[in-house]
Amino acid sequence: MSGQAAEDRSPRAERAARAALTRVLEPGDEQGGRWLREFGAVEVMRRLRCPRSDERALPGARESRLEGYRARAAVADPEADLAAMTAAGGRFVVPGDAEWPRQLEDLGDARPIGLWLRGRPNLRIWALRSVALVGARACTSYGAHMATTMAAGLAERGWVVVSGAAYGVDGSAHRGALAVGGATAAVLACGVDCVYPRGHGGLLRRIAEQGLIIGELPPGAHPTPSRFVLRNRVIAALTRGTVVVEARYRSGSLVTARAAQRLGRLAMGVPGPATSGLSGGVHELLRGEASLVTDAAEVVELVGDMGELAPPRTGPVLARDLLTPDAARVLEALPGRGTVTAEETALRAGTGIDEVICRLYELHSLGFVERQGDEWQLALVQDDCGQRTGNPRRGGP
Amino acid sequence: MSGQAAEDRSPRAERAARAALTRVLEPGDEQGGRWLREFGAVEVMRRLRCPRSDERALPGARESRLEGYRARAAVADPEADLAAMTAAGGRFVVPGDAEWPRQLEDLGDARPIGLWLRGRPNLRIWALRSVALVGARACTSYGAHMATTMAAGLAERGWVVVSGAAYGVDGSAHRGALAVGGATAAVLACGVDCVYPRGHGGLLRRIAEQGLIIGELPPGAHPTPSRFVLRNRVIAALTRGTVVVEARYRSGSLVTARAAQRLGRLAMGVPGPATSGLSGGVHELLRGEASLVTDAAEVVELVGDMGELAPPRTGPVLARDLLTPDAARVLEALPGRGTVTAEETALRAGTGIDEVICRLYELHSLGFVERQGDEWQLALVQDDCGQRTGNPRRGGP
Repeated sequence: MSGQAAEDRSPRAERAARAALTRVLEPGDEQGGRWLREFGAVEVMRRLRCPRSDERALPGARESRLEGYRARAAVADPEADLAAMTAAGGRFVVPGDAEWPRQLEDLGDARPIGLWLRGRPNLRIWALRSVALVGARACTSYGAHMATTMAAGLAERGWVVVSGAAYGVDGSAHRGALAVGGATAAVLACGVDCVYPRGHGGLLRRIAEQGLIIGELPPGAHPTPSRFVLRNRVIAALTRGTVVVEARYRSGSLVTARAAQRLGRLAMGVPGPATSGLSGGVHELLRGEASLVTDAAEVVELVGDMGELAPPRTGPVLARDLLTPDAARVLEALPGRGTVTAEETALRAGTGIDEVICRLYELHSLGFVERQGDEWQLALVQDDCGQRTGNPRRGGP
Repeated sequence: MSGQAAEDRSPRAERAARAALTRVLEPGDEQGGRWLREFGAVEVMRRLRCPRSDERALPGARESRLEGYRARAAVADPEADLAAMTAAGGRFVVPGDAEWPRQLEDLGDARPIGLWLRGRPNLRIWALRSVALVGARACTSYGAHMATTMAAGLAERGWVVVSGAAYGVDGSAHRGALAVGGATAAVLACGVDCVYPRGHGGLLRRIAEQGLIIGELPPGAHPTPSRFVLRNRVIAALTRGTVVVEARYRSGSLVTARAAQRLGRLAMGVPGPATSGLSGGVHELLRGEASLVTDAAEVVELVGDMGELAPPRTGPVLARDLLTPDAARVLEALPGRGTVTAEETALRAGTGIDEVICRLYELHSLGFVERQGDEWQLALVQDDCGQRTGNPRRGGP
């Protein structure tokens, strides 16, 4: 162990220390968040690993909890975790990275230490036009139907469907988006390399190929009840609003919806029969401040409006020539007039279909392209002279 | 025809003239309401019947419409109508009568000219604790189930269930209240002696025996589409709130709910599957200012609160010794402690069961008695000394 003065505090060292801390601290630990803000990740790890009691002060935590953290810190091997994630085609993003979604700052000291990711899309851009769709694991066929069709409708309108990959409503939501070649992201309560629930191995693989798998926990970490609950705040914070499809009283989905409300996002609920216990929680939510929605168009009307009312959240305008080369190539592959399928665009751009879908959604988030049913086209925008042009109407960060 | 000076303007003459005008003017005619306010009913009838063109001016109406009114006025025979209604056990109440429900004043010039009634209960007292339950004629079994159980629950809590006696939700609501020996009132869009719809003859008979049949139209008058729509404003105005159970977009039930909102009453909706067109109108309502309700307790919580927030609407306190002799006898028949059935009360009071139920609901509205399941008891009230007593907690008009 080296002294404080000799510590490597480069961005690379900070990233590694944050990776280590995802293995040490539990998600949403606000005490840990304050340490990170005050001392930086490298210094927090140094103190947790320091054998000298006069150099390892970390204020506010019980000694018993610190003992547990020190034991975890002693065995953490962030370089190995980062290497394993990279080898598996994944990555680790931290606050300050270009891909870090700014919405998570709304969580304050409970914001994730970092996010482990699998999948090609840029999380920050996807999060700009995303909606959470969550609900009961043991849903009815009505709940599964509503989740599937609503997710498909949202995806068709260019929205990213975020959920938790659980059985029931979550799985239906992901599948609904995938079924129409749409964008979907799963936020897990375990390592992003884990298959949980067991029966969703195929689904998680498809999401990783066509969308994004997101998690606060390091590779191999198991889910626990509290991790499920704390995972919900990430779903709520990432998205513009949370739709609950079937939930009993005191269901975890209601936690997500209420977290969304506290964060200034929109909470929405899909009504069901008053005789169904699985709609009881949703109806309770709807008696509060939540909005009643029955299809994707109604969701978009609500979250779209909210986006328009809050343009500062999207940051400064991104000009066309600041696009990444990959995104620019896909944009150039679109015809000046008319629509085209993702397959055709892939042929024209000379790239893979999953890559193209991922870039098309990025371009959609930034206002460059629009989706028409199964096909895509350049965004048609009224410019200052009243002419319809293919220029982007809206910019992104 | 006599001159203006010789006209009989006694209350009896005014009542007869109002009875005649229910046959002449259409319900909700605000122009007619202004004439009534300005000239009085006797003078309006005199002008409509006057052959001299210089003495029959009625401002604001097209001559063609006045022609129609004059033709109706010429054949109106209010004394015969009133006699027929009395012979059939009914009555005709007008503004200013002790039984006139003050809530109807909120309709302004569109308030009913008078109301034809069948049934024993006092309309004014029943209206104090009443809720409208309306919805689709071609309802699903889910809608019928919700209307029946909600009406039964409201009746068990001492509330009067008001509806329109139509097939579907309306009929289920009346039946649900009747099934638990509860209070229900039907507001018709035709004469209160008419059987409409045809298949509801038995139901209307039971309502007339156990509850109230209410209508603006004179004996024998037929329903028309516009009369159905205008009837809805009476349902909305009479009650503390309107609950819609299943309604398509643009359904008449939504008209009632929106009328309730405009009148400062509560609009409520029972959610259903988002996939059901018969819940589409309700969900539309719930996206607005209406409240979501799934059972009778939730309805009572909402309309009860509203009543407590607006005590002036119930007028000054009615002391026990101001009760009618019939109501006082039923009150005296209740035991000092414990509960008793309506049947037993009828035995003790020495009166009929329907009469007793009707008085018990009046007494309930006035705060003298409480309902416990199928039984009744004196209202137990915390008095100033902290003792539980049988004194009324709340007063009536």
